[in-house]
Amino acid sequence: MQVYLDNNATTMVDPLVVEAMLPFFSEIYGNPNSLHKIGTASHPAISKAIDQVYTALNAADADDIVFTSCATESNNWVLQSMYIDHVLNGDKNHIVTTEVEHPSILSTCKFLEEQGVKVTYLPVNEQGVVEAHTVKSFITDKTALVSIMWASNETGMINPIAEIGEICKEKGVPFHSDAVQAVGKIPVDLQSLHVDFISMSAHKFHGPKGVGALYIRNSQALSPLMHGGEHMGGRRSGTLNVAGIVGMGKAIELATANIEEAAAKIRAKRDRLEDAILELNDTFVVGDRDNRTPNTILISIKGVEGEGMLWDLNNGQIGASTGSACASEDLEANTVMLAIGADNELAHTGIRLSLSRFTTDAEIDYTITHFKDAVKRLRAISSSFAIQKPTAGGEVQECELHHH
Amino acid sequence: MQVYLDNNATTMVDPLVVEAMLPFFSEIYGNPNSLHKIGTASHPAISKAIDQVYTALNAADADDIVFTSCATESNNWVLQSMYIDHVLNGDKNHIVTTEVEHPSILSTCKFLEEQGVKVTYLPVNEQGVVEAHTVKSFITDKTALVSIMWASNETGMINPIAEIGEICKEKGVPFHSDAVQAVGKIPVDLQSLHVDFISMSAHKFHGPKGVGALYIRNSQALSPLMHGGEHMGGRRSGTLNVAGIVGMGKAIELATANIEEAAAKIRAKRDRLEDAILELNDTFVVGDRDNRTPNTILISIKGVEGEGMLWDLNNGQIGASTGSACASEDLEANTVMLAIGADNELAHTGIRLSLSRFTTDAEIDYTITHFKDAVKRLRAISSSFAIQKPTAGGEVQECELHHH
Repeated sequence: MQVYLDNNATTMVDPLVVEAMLPFFSEIYGNPNSLHKIGTASHPAISKAIDQVYTALNAADADDIVFTSCATESNNWVLQSMYIDHVLNGDKNHIVTTEVEHPSILSTCKFLEEQGVKVTYLPVNEQGVVEAHTVKSFITDKTALVSIMWASNETGMINPIAEIGEICKEKGVPFHSDAVQAVGKIPVDLQSLHVDFISMSAHKFHGPKGVGALYIRNSQALSPLMHGGEHMGGRRSGTLNVAGIVGMGKAIELATANIEEAAAKIRAKRDRLEDAILELNDTFVVGDRDNRTPNTILISIKGVEGEGMLWDLNNGQIGASTGSACASEDLEANTVMLAIGADNELAHTGIRLSLSRFTTDAEIDYTITHFKDAVKRLRAISSSFAIQKPTAGGEVQECELHHH
Repeated sequence: MQVYLDNNATTMVDPLVVEAMLPFFSEIYGNPNSLHKIGTASHPAISKAIDQVYTALNAADADDIVFTSCATESNNWVLQSMYIDHVLNGDKNHIVTTEVEHPSILSTCKFLEEQGVKVTYLPVNEQGVVEAHTVKSFITDKTALVSIMWASNETGMINPIAEIGEICKEKGVPFHSDAVQAVGKIPVDLQSLHVDFISMSAHKFHGPKGVGALYIRNSQALSPLMHGGEHMGGRRSGTLNVAGIVGMGKAIELATANIEEAAAKIRAKRDRLEDAILELNDTFVVGDRDNRTPNTILISIKGVEGEGMLWDLNNGQIGASTGSACASEDLEANTVMLAIGADNELAHTGIRLSLSRFTTDAEIDYTITHFKDAVKRLRAISSSFAIQKPTAGGEVQECELHHH
């Protein structure tokens, strides 16, 4: 059995999405900007995809949805444009964000710092959540943008977006949220709260890789990141990725049509998995379940290196992560765990399990069994844990038999 | 019969390319940055795609090929990074380009001019070609970049890239070429000449929309346009568009494997179409055939508005263009035709026909017949042409019969 529990990194494209995309490769292949029928034949499908995204987010007619190549582009766009529009002219010089944003926010902030922008990286509390009052206290007259993720890719913890939105509105500061881990996982209703920009990526909700979007409240001005042929009303140039856009529309529709019901099903599987793992001694899960995306667990298993655990799970055909996939190739401590106050040793023990609507109960059963065995195996060879837990000797032998 | 003669705007995805892409949606769907098997399962396919691009371009091992979302991104990247790396620090302040570049170059240059960069827009000669000696005469000590398209999207005319490359090398100025209309149409051998960067888009050579690349000679430094998770060695962040990359690799392989032979076949059809149209009186084709991409004709038909011609062709199920698809939605004069010295009236008569390897002889026959009839129809209702050509009266009546 192969079990994919790394859905915060990327997801399987829903076969229904592939089916929707297929005609737009070799049949309806024209450039939507062409005037002839072969070009305009794609217009109804693009309009439908735009409608699907508007509906999924409950965006208002006056708002803009602009397709991009991914949330990394959307995030770079908002941050770099704030620099062009408000920092370069000497008007503002400050961005407020958090310590635990995705690298596409943090690296862009580092780049902007090199250009003279001041960036405040807000801490998160022990739940991994930004407290709205800290946002309020760091906004100044020079603040050009507040950028705070909707939900964490690593912990799944959900920030108080409505509350932060009210603060930003009151202070007159544009508010951007990287909503890549929220859209399709929890209800995102853009008319029920105030956020100026949100970033999203189709591949996080069973759509294709290579297409994302930026939501722009009230179609407000924002300098483009990509200049060119004035596609999408001049907001984002580059020939429209028709198949990708159609796929994103279909994927967001499928992911949000019955989101409460779908989330409840995923949550039940996640909770069962989490409860089973927590039966093991010295295990800790980051953050309150009720304020977490329903598919995510970031778990710490004392005495078990995250990388070793990944390796063992991988041998058992289970795909998991120690945190953001973007950082998976370097073996550093989990930065979010450090941010919430874990010590360096503990921060090396983080394992993220992220489910999807395609995760089955049988896969959860299999994972529980394998995971528990893996912890035994790895603790058996963990000198630090053995010293702390000499009574585990009996188990060690058993595990060594498994291991050889 | 439907005839697609707008292949410079975009192309049909080759069904073999779609076939190569398909497993990477719902089967091998992992994030290549993930450490587990489900992620790393895509690595061989990505390596293969990279090899296919290297081989197609005869790039050297020391060179870099970085996948982007399209040539518009690649073009923005090179130009904006030259600003970051050489203009912002006061080192250089000047870019040399041409009047007839694609909008993704021209608009980015306009944007950079607003930031204080000086841009020289070189004219083209009556062949629509940049003369290398003009490039030489405009390079100064302050020139940060020369950016000149390999072949024109509108005319198909091929610039003297080898000669310009030598000049740039000698002057020590980085040379970028938007090669979007060259790759897959004519041999592009990057070890036979000197160019530092080339931009390309898969959808111009029967690959998918939403994926492109930037070639970087000798892996030289270039600030990223997209900051983030350090994908592609930190050069371009954002989850890799695996299916798109696989599709681009397959597409470039198919387009270049026997390029001389394929080009000769397309050229023969193009020449037959061109010869037939030139039998009509007062028709002009821009640029010498031998120095043109083998699939392109930009033709001017005196007394026939390009837009009217497009409309008539469209009624006959023939898709063509008045120039760049990016500009197709605005009804302005063809800027390239103005640049080569056409008057405003003539510049409104441009029609671009661009073939592909999928264009059949039957489609060419059909187009010749329809095109000739269309010219008769449109000249019959053209007051300006009737005044100039009163002897065409006999044809007018005949055409009116066709028209009603």
